[in-house]
Amino acid sequence: MSKELVINYFQKLQDSICADLNSFDLTSKFKEDKWNHHSGGGGRTRTFQGEIIEKGGVNFSAIEGVTNESLQKQLQISEELDFTATGVSIVLHPHNPFVPIIHMNVRYFELSNGTYWFGGGIDLTPHFVFEEDCVFFHSKLKEVCDKHSVSHYPKFKKWADDYFYIKHREETRGIGGIFFDQLSGNESITKEEVFNFVKSVGEVFAELYLTIAKKRYQLPFSDSDKKWQFVRRGRYVEFNLVWDRGTKFGLESGGRTESILMSLPPTAQWFYDFQPQKNTAEEISMRYFKKGIGWVV
Amino acid sequence: MSKELVINYFQKLQDSICADLNSFDLTSKFKEDKWNHHSGGGGRTRTFQGEIIEKGGVNFSAIEGVTNESLQKQLQISEELDFTATGVSIVLHPHNPFVPIIHMNVRYFELSNGTYWFGGGIDLTPHFVFEEDCVFFHSKLKEVCDKHSVSHYPKFKKWADDYFYIKHREETRGIGGIFFDQLSGNESITKEEVFNFVKSVGEVFAELYLTIAKKRYQLPFSDSDKKWQFVRRGRYVEFNLVWDRGTKFGLESGGRTESILMSLPPTAQWFYDFQPQKNTAEEISMRYFKKGIGWVV
Repeated sequence: MSKELVINYFQKLQDSICADLNSFDLTSKFKEDKWNHHSGGGGRTRTFQGEIIEKGGVNFSAIEGVTNESLQKQLQISEELDFTATGVSIVLHPHNPFVPIIHMNVRYFELSNGTYWFGGGIDLTPHFVFEEDCVFFHSKLKEVCDKHSVSHYPKFKKWADDYFYIKHREETRGIGGIFFDQLSGNESITKEEVFNFVKSVGEVFAELYLTIAKKRYQLPFSDSDKKWQFVRRGRYVEFNLVWDRGTKFGLESGGRTESILMSLPPTAQWFYDFQPQKNTAEEISMRYFKKGIGWVV
Repeated sequence: MSKELVINYFQKLQDSICADLNSFDLTSKFKEDKWNHHSGGGGRTRTFQGEIIEKGGVNFSAIEGVTNESLQKQLQISEELDFTATGVSIVLHPHNPFVPIIHMNVRYFELSNGTYWFGGGIDLTPHFVFEEDCVFFHSKLKEVCDKHSVSHYPKFKKWADDYFYIKHREETRGIGGIFFDQLSGNESITKEEVFNFVKSVGEVFAELYLTIAKKRYQLPFSDSDKKWQFVRRGRYVEFNLVWDRGTKFGLESGGRTESILMSLPPTAQWFYDFQPQKNTAEEISMRYFKKGIGWVV
């Protein structure tokens, strides 16, 4: 299985997701920026600014280069090797605070010595938690995982809880999802099977998001609901800039800043020591931003 | 000279700066939160929310503890020692986009083996650059520095340019100021003299800020000026969360999150690939956000 096959698939995935989102929010269309990477390859950054999806980004990239010292250290290799890194990355910030923020990523990395792996995940960040949406979201993810291996969901759900964690706030970014990294074929699973799993993750994204968004985007909301959304978006910024390894690596290694930071929200706010009042929807939502919640019965 | 002397001085400095700011923006008063640190000592976080200063924080802290492994590594020492870290830290986010954001910090660190140093600085982050304000700001800083040593200003001005740099944007946070760290007494300068310099920095803060703020806070502004302010505040967030060593160290070492992040702006915005139009006040301001500008003739 060649890397071209993966690259082509990721490009088509970007096309198909953008088409689905375009058909949902008819107030705008994705705009595309094509760009080249300094060491080879490049990407297509697509962004959306509409009335339902206030700020959305769907990025495809396929970068080539030679491992530098810092990358060699990270990869624990001792020689210069050619590498290819490709993936699709999505973050959608909705206008309505009752629609969650969603993030999806699928990626593939390959070295010229034959080493390769896949990574990715989907996670949901509601401003206000609706239990039924979380149950639907996690059940659907489990269903997708189970088709490939029954060990995937429990393992990757825990990985997401641990990864999307805002340590300095002692809270998770949202209600989690799945996260996985460095998945390769081995005696019990072929490369094709790993790729098929990654495809399933990519392909369930639009259905997952649109099912929830369609249910919530017309709900009326107040200024105070909007304020809470801005505060929660502030936490999203904190996670992405302080803790997200992908963002940090991208910014430190000279990635394309605008493509990396398209994940940041349109408007965020910070109030000193903001605490929601007891038993409000805000405070009740906070109770779900912790690790280890079993959403699927 | 005992650490108690420094601690007491920093407390009084916080009082005096808060009093000056209270007399400037009469629409509110500083509110105080007292807190304890897990390993000893604590602080007084004072925050302001008024009509001129939209969000302001003036923090005093005096922390005690025993160096843990990570701190020993940083300090290049091989044994557990008691430490004291004390300082005053200020960030003010004005409502009017023609008033700059300002940051000031003075700090003192001491180990039980007798090692100690002072650090600190003041830097200015205008949303819109007025050359005369920058010249005034840097001239005043130079004047303060020169009273102690003529080598201070050039050295600490360059240090600020290098420190307050947003690498992934290839721009400085604002128009700089002075920054210094690990200043101790030696053959040519006593500890008292270093402390006197730090005092001068702390004591010029209110005059510096209020002179500029009084000149600008009544200027009329448009929605589009406000939008630019939100975008520049986004960059402030990026610097503080991605590059500021103090913020990172604080968040990673279990510091008080709300006191550390009181530096974040009330409202910030991110637009994909936002570029100001050629020759607008926004675009002209951007030309000043680079290293090495000689503001003082």
